[in-house]
Order: sequence, then C-alpha cells, then structure tokens
Amino acid sequence: MKSDIDSLMQAHALDALLITGPGKHNPAMVYMTGGGHLTRADLIKKRGDEPVLFHYSMERDEAANTGLRTKNLDDYDLMSLYKEANGDQVKMQVARYQKMFAEMGISAGRMAIYGQSDAGGSYAIFTALQQAMPELTIVGELGNTVILEAMATKDPDAIERIRHMGKVTTGVVGQVADFLSSQRAKDGVLVRRDGTPVTIGDVKSRINLWLAERGAENPEDTIFAIGRDAGVPHSAGTPGDLLRLGQTIIFDIFPCEAGGGYFYDFTRTWCLGYASDDAAALYEDVRAVYDQVMSELSSGKVFKSYQDRTCELFEARGHPTGRSKPGTQEGYVHSLGHGVGLHIHEAPFSGFTSPDTDRLAPGVVVTIEPGLYYPERGMGVRLEDTIGVRPDGQFEILAEYPYDLVLPVQTG
Amino acid sequence: MKSDIDSLMQAHALDALLITGPGKHNPAMVYMTGGGHLTRADLIKKRGDEPVLFHYSMERDEAANTGLRTKNLDDYDLMSLYKEANGDQVKMQVARYQKMFAEMGISAGRMAIYGQSDAGGSYAIFTALQQAMPELTIVGELGNTVILEAMATKDPDAIERIRHMGKVTTGVVGQVADFLSSQRAKDGVLVRRDGTPVTIGDVKSRINLWLAERGAENPEDTIFAIGRDAGVPHSAGTPGDLLRLGQTIIFDIFPCEAGGGYFYDFTRTWCLGYASDDAAALYEDVRAVYDQVMSELSSGKVFKSYQDRTCELFEARGHPTGRSKPGTQEGYVHSLGHGVGLHIHEAPFSGFTSPDTDRLAPGVVVTIEPGLYYPERGMGVRLEDTIGVRPDGQFEILAEYPYDLVLPVQTG
Repeated sequence: MKSDIDSLMQAHALDALLITGPGKHNPAMVYMTGGGHLTRADLIKKRGDEPVLFHYSMERDEAANTGLRTKNLDDYDLMSLYKEANGDQVKMQVARYQKMFAEMGISAGRMAIYGQSDAGGSYAIFTALQQAMPELTIVGELGNTVILEAMATKDPDAIERIRHMGKVTTGVVGQVADFLSSQRAKDGVLVRRDGTPVTIGDVKSRINLWLAERGAENPEDTIFAIGRDAGVPHSAGTPGDLLRLGQTIIFDIFPCEAGGGYFYDFTRTWCLGYASDDAAALYEDVRAVYDQVMSELSSGKVFKSYQDRTCELFEARGHPTGRSKPGTQEGYVHSLGHGVGLHIHEAPFSGFTSPDTDRLAPGVVVTIEPGLYYPERGMGVRLEDTIGVRPDGQFEILAEYPYDLVLPVQTG
Repeated sequence: MKSDIDSLMQAHALDALLITGPGKHNPAMVYMTGGGHLTRADLIKKRGDEPVLFHYSMERDEAANTGLRTKNLDDYDLMSLYKEANGDQVKMQVARYQKMFAEMGISAGRMAIYGQSDAGGSYAIFTALQQAMPELTIVGELGNTVILEAMATKDPDAIERIRHMGKVTTGVVGQVADFLSSQRAKDGVLVRRDGTPVTIGDVKSRINLWLAERGAENPEDTIFAIGRDAGVPHSAGTPGDLLRLGQTIIFDIFPCEAGGGYFYDFTRTWCLGYASDDAAALYEDVRAVYDQVMSELSSGKVFKSYQDRTCELFEARGHPTGRSKPGTQEGYVHSLGHGVGLHIHEAPFSGFTSPDTDRLAPGVVVTIEPGLYYPERGMGVRLEDTIGVRPDGQFEILAEYPYDLVLPVQTG
C-alpha cells in the first residue's frame, strides 16, 4: 500500500525516489498523483517526507488538482539552462535536475528512478546525471521495485475501483454473449439477419463501443480468438475470421479506467451452438483444474507454488506443461496468473522465475487463469477471474460471471 | 521516413539500434512493427540489415503478422539463464541480450536504444550491459533521435492515416456541436429538455463514445475547458462544471488510432449562445494571427522561426508573449505547434529551444495552434489545425472544419 512506501524505501536502502514521465498511462505516476493531464512531470519523494510534483506552468491547475505539494518548472529559468548548455538537451536536463535536487536538499545517498519514458532518453539523462553527481547513487530497480511492492497490496479504495472495472468488464461480456446468441447459424457460421457473416472484427468494434459507453478504455485491445488462434495464448484473433460453430473461442478482455487507471482481467472460453467432444473434454480439464486450484488458495502462500501445483494437476490429466516439457507449445504453456492493478501485469507473479517474496498476501489482487492449448488440433481453452485476498485471508472473485462453455445461437 | 533509417544511422554514427517494450502505445515499436499484441519484445536492427523481432513464444502469431524476421525468445533457454544468474533479474536480462547480440554478430560499435519502458528498469539493464560489453557503446539519444528524425517526415500511407484520424476527429467535433446546439439555455447555462444542466463530464463521455464508434482511442483525454480553465492552456476542464453561455470554451481533442497508432490534434474555441465583446476581440486577435502565420508558411523553413513571428504578431496587438515577458502566464504562453504522428507531440518542434534542424520539410505533419490566455479575466482562445507539407511544398489542412466562435443554442 502507498502508506508502506517509506518502510519499503528503508528496506531497499533508498533515500529518495524520482518518478518521471506523463501523467496518464504511466502507472507509477498515476499511483502517486491520481493521473491528471500532465504532458511530462517529475515527482520526487525523500524518505519520510511528502512527495513534491514538478510540473510545467501550462499544467499548473492539473498539478494542483493532485492535492500534492507542487513546484512550477518555469521558476527554474529553463531558458538560461538551455543557453548555458549550448542547446545540449542532456546537459540541460541534468542541470534542471541538479537545481531541483538542490532545492530539495538532495546531494547524496541513494535515489531510485521510475516512470514510463523512452529507454534511450532516460539512459542518456541518468547516466550523465550520475557522472555529474558522484555522491548521489542513482538506482535502477528491476523486478520488485519499491513502487511495485507498494502497489502489490491494494488499499480498499483500489479494490473497489478494480471491482467496479470487473462489473464494467462482465457487463460487456454479457452484452457480447447476448449479441452472439441473438444471431443465427447458417452453413456452420454465425450470420446476421441479412445473411452476412459476423466477423471477429465486428465483435471487437462492439466491445470497444460498449466499454466506452461504460466509461472504460481498452488500450491493449481484446483477445477474441477462434480455432487455431485460440491455441496460441496471446493471438489476439484475426479481424476477418468468421465465427464457426463448435470451435473454441478464447475471449480475454482487460480494459482499464479512462486515462490509464485500474485494470480488470477476465477470460471465458465459448463454443457457439455446440462443443465438439474434443473441445468439451479439454474444457472439463481446465475447469476441474481451475476449481481445484481455487479451492486450495491460501493467504500468505508463495504465488508460484500454485504454478507448480497447476502443472501437477494438468500433468496428471495427461497434458504436457512448461515444467514437464520446457518450451512446449502444447498443453499448459504459461503461468497461472499475475497481479492486476494500474498495470495489467504486475506483482505478484507466479512464473517459475518469480521471487519467493511474491505472495498471496491480504490486499493482493491476482488473476487465476489456467489454460490448455493445442494449436495443431485447432483449439484452446482458458478460464480467468480476477480475485482479491481480503484482510481476513479469504479469497473472492471480484466480478462473478457464469462458466458455460456452449453459447446457444438461433438456428434456421 | 522509414526508408531513411540507414542513412540516419550513418549520420548519427550508429551501427545498430534496439527498440524495447510493448507492441502497443510504444511509438518506436509501433513504427517498426505496425503494433501487434506483444506484451514485451525487442527489435534489433543493424545498419544496412533488415530488423529482427525477438518475441515470446505465446506471441509468435502476433510477431509473424508484422512480416518482419522473427526470433522466438523461448529458443534462448531463459530458464538456464535465470539459474545461472541466481535469480538476479538484471544479470539474466544482460545474459539474454548478450546471447541475442552474439547471434546477430553484434559485439562492438555503437548501439542506440529506444522504446517506452520503466526508466529504472532500463537504466539498470543498460548500465549493466554496458559494463559487461565494454567494446559495445550503448547510446541513449535524447531530442532528435534516429527514430524521431525518421518519423518526422511521413510517407504517403502515414499521411492518409493521419488524414483519416482528422476525419474521425472533426466528425466527432461536429457531433459535439450538434449536441450542444440542440440543448437549450436556462438562467445562463445549458440544460437538457428535462431542465437538468449539461456538465463538462457529460460532454466528455459523449466524446469518448463517439470516438469509439469511429474506431478511435482517446488515451490522453480531451481538453474541454470553460472560463478561467480555458485561460490555462492544459487545464483539461472540470467534470462538474456547467456550460455558461457567453464564456469561451477551449475544445482541444487529440485521439489516436486504436492500439496507439497515429494521432490527430485539433482545437476550436466556442462561446455558447453569444460572445462577450471581450471574448470576441480576443478571438479576432487569435484568428488574425492564425491566418497570417498560415499564409506565411514556407516549405523548408526552420519551424521555430514562426514562433518568433507569432510572438511578433501578438505583441503588435498588445499581448505579452513568452518572448517579451519570459514566464508570463498571460497572453501567448506556449509554442506555435509541434509534429504529430505516432506521438501526439513529436518532431519538428517550434519552441525557442528546438534545434534549427526542426524544419517544415515536405512530408512533415505539424499543428499550428496560436492562442491567447487571460485566466484572471476568465478566458482563453486557441485555434489549431493539423497540417501537412506536400511533396510540392504546399501546405494543406488535413481535415477542414469551420472556425465560428459562437455556437447558437435553443432559447426559451
């Protein structure tokens, strides 16, 4: 939680942190500011002190709306810095940071940097800043950073916002189900009243519209993949593809609050009209493993221990996994789940290489998403819910939705 | 243009470039790949060679759809790298890059890095990689990078995509105008048929919906700011504010193609019902300067020379500018415009600190957006169109829209 940041800074031996980049679609900045219309800003926090937001003059109202202490960068006489740097952008940015740090009393110690920005630009600025300020150690954290560790346990307000996005998501999923069910089958594909086929592109356009109606954004697109595409976990689906009856459709939807706020992540697998025996059997295996893993979740456990358990369960049902057959493209080929928050993927993680500190602690919000993939057999199945760990250690699905495999459609 | 990349690499003395990060909302990656569903990928290009896209196995179909040469990262035995690195994420990433570079025959020379990613994570990885490979110079470019210089001149396909986004944008602006004009005035504010007032939040929800209907995304929100808010250039507008008649509304809208593609940028200033004499006079000044500057644009000129000219024109009309009164928050307080492409703001730039190489060359797409701001008088005016420089050196507005200040509303 945000209130843990000072103690996390202590644990990471950090004296200060700096978050740079835009105000929106920049998780660390959104986390600290709430996400206003800031083209580019810097937030600096010394351990034990309130953060300070440095903004450009044109964005002073948006900065003030954050409720944070603010500083107007126009007060730093950027034009003089530019002239002194002879137009060298890196030198100018280094001089700007030095001026800002001096005002905040930062001259030594360890400062970590965060925020979405261009890899080359930030590498240029921060390596030059490090050279200019040898007493200050600039720290690049990777993996479980202070910010990601704080984010991993959500406060009640964040949980409610994710729950709301869950309602938005399952509401749209219901609209998609109603839309598909109200079309009819002809020659094995779904068609409209006028006989023209429904395409995956059509379905995706409606999803974006229905998300917008509910005030959500869909920056990462939707996975709506049928047949062989469903057999490759991250195939987003081919826009021109028709919806063939009886084939597995993986529908994985992960919208966020407008402006890059909290995400929700959700998957169902559907067969239109009927399921082949093969698809139904695959579905039963995923459903059984999903139910088993959900029943075994226990507060405080290392998340990746359930990855091991999921592999064991799938292997017992005769499927290859990333554990029994590293690099397999058939069977269970990904990890069980991941944290969800201001990133669609964030800590805690469940992959084999995730740290043991990634635990299902109270406040954590994660996906549970077992799946089986057989691209050569033209099918894949995944079921996913986003779940929260309550303060009492109980797990709850943040937005319930039925698990039916077959979606009936109109015939004749 | 993309075809200039090899010669730009030569001019920047670069032997290779590396683009990292997600496949969407990551301009450099979208530029080179087209923007598929890639959670995280690396694209490497040696000067004179075709780029190679390194992707994860789950995303092999999305990678293949780019039409580029691809390499599956699962072939790099990441689990062994992880074990050899004893779980140290930075060491593991460095080892992964070294393996990839070895396969591509990259061991020395100068390699520039690009792509949206976490500032700390990329700083950690690339400083460690630099230490591990002292023969290879890792270059962080800031300002006019190879990628930004290539992007600055658009090929015909990119121009058509921006023009299409212009049609989407002005289409939605027309819908907003129709919506406002069909409401009625009561006690000086705009109300619906049932007498409840229309808020800025209402208008913004409709904008997002209408953009989604047209297949666009709106990741940066919209500026729809009235009264004093209109007097602060980047105030996005207060959702609960009512639409008072006679006050200036700055409506600045900048959506992009779904998934983080090409943007369009557009502003009109409206007064509902009537304009006060003060607002009308301010508007006339902005309109006259807009027309004058547009008439003087000449292919090949340094973009910021028009910033100087715009200041001159506004000063002649009695307004303070950033030139006559540095740091002013009244009058003309920003720069004339900026390039538009896969970034909402990209080269060429027109600010006083922009380089002389930022020119209005053929293929360039820029905004022209003079404005005047008087927050204490509760008003602001800005007019903005996105224009392209044709191969013959002629300038064209990519999506025309009327300039009327007063938007009539229903009365009684």
